[in-house]
Amino acid sequence: MLSVRPAQENDMPIVHQLIADLAAFEREPQEVELSLSQLVKDGFSDKPKYKCFVAELDGSIVGMALVYPRYSTWKGTVIHLEDLIVNEAQRGDGIGTKLLDKVVEYGHQLGVKRISWEVLDWNEPAIKFYEQKGAKVMRDWDVVQLNQKGIEEYLKLRK
Amino acid sequence: MLSVRPAQENDMPIVHQLIADLAAFEREPQEVELSLSQLVKDGFSDKPKYKCFVAELDGSIVGMALVYPRYSTWKGTVIHLEDLIVNEAQRGDGIGTKLLDKVVEYGHQLGVKRISWEVLDWNEPAIKFYEQKGAKVMRDWDVVQLNQKGIEEYLKLRK
Repeated sequence: MLSVRPAQENDMPIVHQLIADLAAFEREPQEVELSLSQLVKDGFSDKPKYKCFVAELDGSIVGMALVYPRYSTWKGTVIHLEDLIVNEAQRGDGIGTKLLDKVVEYGHQLGVKRISWEVLDWNEPAIKFYEQKGAKVMRDWDVVQLNQKGIEEYLKLRK
Repeated sequence: MLSVRPAQENDMPIVHQLIADLAAFEREPQEVELSLSQLVKDGFSDKPKYKCFVAELDGSIVGMALVYPRYSTWKGTVIHLEDLIVNEAQRGDGIGTKLLDKVVEYGHQLGVKRISWEVLDWNEPAIKFYEQKGAKVMRDWDVVQLNQKGIEEYLKLRK
């Protein structure tokens, strides 16, 4: 039986593993610098930095969705879906949909005016899925990142 | 004389005007649903939802940058630059660079491992500027948004 529920602290080792597995699949395993203990601390303190949901199939965690608030100068507080991961063996069974359902319900409960996430522009099945769900894939907006080394170089160059 | 400093509550009417001006320039003025009073409340309460910097030129506010934390499952807490706006009449005077400098300093002080933002993929001057600054424009990652109407439709459809 499948259920989607808020993650508990003792689910986080498997959630951390799902994060690492996805990074390996994307050929960037070395980019996961976040430890399990930090992940737990950040999510289960007095001021949690994210909300995590897990999909449980017959007692095993097979997927997760992790969201947090962002701030839009047009809409106020909105939520962002950082990760939606389904264990490779269970993909295609509708588990991703159940997780997305939960995220949209959660956003609706909070009363936010927008839920955002990011998608690879060549991932046509994902794009089609999101568009069928009513989401707008903004193909003209790209993500920009300045990483840790970039931050240091930036500050060095301007001096 | 130009200075960049943290915004104070009484700067926010002009910050709100800059937000509205940019939305009008982007031909989406009706999308600004956030009131000035909500903007002030969200930024100047006990738990501020964002940090705003303003550029002041000879006593007048001519630009702003607005950032808030996000959460990366690879890097932990990171910051996101939501808006960087320079008044139309003052563009090209290096004010945008001064604001970006401040944002990068701020991220460095917080010790974050990433600063992110978004850019229109046809805005080649902006992309070139960011790349010269060491940022990575991830052209294969698109932004996805489910808006308020989309959230309601989504929940209706799944019932």
